[in-house]
Amino acid sequence: MDRHDIYAKLEECGIALPNMGAPAAAYAMCVQSGNVAYLSGHLAKKDGKVWVGKLGATLSADDGITAARSVAIDLLATLHTHLGDLNRVKRIVKLTSVVNSTAEFTGQHLVTNGASELFAEVFGESGKHARSAFGVAQIPLGACVEIELIVEVACGSDRA
Amino acid sequence: MDRHDIYAKLEECGIALPNMGAPAAAYAMCVQSGNVAYLSGHLAKKDGKVWVGKLGATLSADDGITAARSVAIDLLATLHTHLGDLNRVKRIVKLTSVVNSTAEFTGQHLVTNGASELFAEVFGESGKHARSAFGVAQIPLGACVEIELIVEVACGSDRA
Amino acid sequence: MDRHDIYAKLEECGIALPNMGAPAAAYAMCVQSGNVAYLSGHLAKKDGKVWVGKLGATLSADDGITAARSVAIDLLATLHTHLGDLNRVKRIVKLTSVVNSTAEFTGQHLVTNGASELFAEVFGESGKHARSAFGVAQIPLGACVEIELIVEVACGSDRA
Repeated sequence: MDRHDIYAKLEECGIALPNMGAPAAAYAMCVQSGNVAYLSGHLAKKDGKVWVGKLGATLSADDGITAARSVAIDLLATLHTHLGDLNRVKRIVKLTSVVNSTAEFTGQHLVTNGASELFAEVFGESGKHARSAFGVAQIPLGACVEIELIVEVACGSDRA
Repeated sequence: MDRHDIYAKLEECGIALPNMGAPAAAYAMCVQSGNVAYLSGHLAKKDGKVWVGKLGATLSADDGITAARSVAIDLLATLHTHLGDLNRVKRIVKLTSVVNSTAEFTGQHLVTNGASELFAEVFGESGKHARSAFGVAQIPLGACVEIELIVEVACGSDRA
Repeated sequence: MDRHDIYAKLEECGIALPNMGAPAAAYAMCVQSGNVAYLSGHLAKKDGKVWVGKLGATLSADDGITAARSVAIDLLATLHTHLGDLNRVKRIVKLTSVVNSTAEFTGQHLVTNGASELFAEVFGESGKHARSAFGVAQIPLGACVEIELIVEVACGSDRA
């Protein structure tokens, strides 16, 4: 196994990338400017449907971690569709994680670790990103977690 | 009409750009780094005043759509002031839409379509952006919607 | 005193940079892509511990301003650690300020001025940034304010 190959790494981690649908409205799942790709906020899903729930009320922190991890896998799927080849990912730069929370739940960082750790697992040092996480009143369609991503991609001569 | 001219398109769409005031504090409405312009969160306004309200309580989703569309027009006005010429917009890259919401309102994506569709209308394919939308507890001055934007601009030799 | 030296300016303003610890999880406090540095959301602290509280309930707007200012100093400390030399800061580009708020508190912009004004004080015109501020249901560990930052840094030949 080539240790640089991300697809081998995904297989080793037992991660299968889902097929991502097109967005329902006048926007895109990923837009690239120069060598920086911006991924739209992706909603947590379970069994292919939006994972509805609120941390501190209907969902536990462990549910949230699972949800955040599944969003990270969906983000990888979107990146794969956009780039054609995930080996072009140079750095996971910035992650913003929005957690559907009661006014009492304060574990948004724990929930978000579900996504952060997946990127570290798959990309190693290149997966270490800056991030913000906080708890919001609601998320579209009642989803429990929404995560967006900024990624530096190799293009042209700087490709590793 | 030159189909590439954004001002002709705005006229065709019946959109007049307002005059945007300077920010009240130690910040700027738009800062450019390289060929990427970052626009501050713009608050929804109605009749020139902050449009106060909360989705799920005092405002309907239709109100929210109207508010988001009006914020998008204000963002265009800020871009016009910053760039001098809106034809220098190369791509609307990323939109973040923050909706003043009760814990029950889950239509932030519908509200945000009011802005997304305006950019698609005015810029066509170049207006298709990545985006995130979510519902928050409050927004400065009680505004119902706040939207920020990242835009790629043509500069120097890469100007179309 | 060299008026361009940021450390002399910090001393003049009576600002001492704290030592910033490493993040607790699989992420980084600062990631740079090209000449743009992305700083993670930094939580407000008081006496070295997370400053817990909610604007509109347990904390006043003045508390919030003090908290935001202290986060801005922590962000400078992270930048200093990352860059080695704060004089390499070319522009404070974008600030996002998330304020732990009740559904009634509408002064997130006032709170955020505590951070915005510090950057203007330290960096002058280069400290003027685009920004967004809004109120959220909760923040990790119950912190009252969380702020993230995008900074343009001088590198190689474009260093002033």
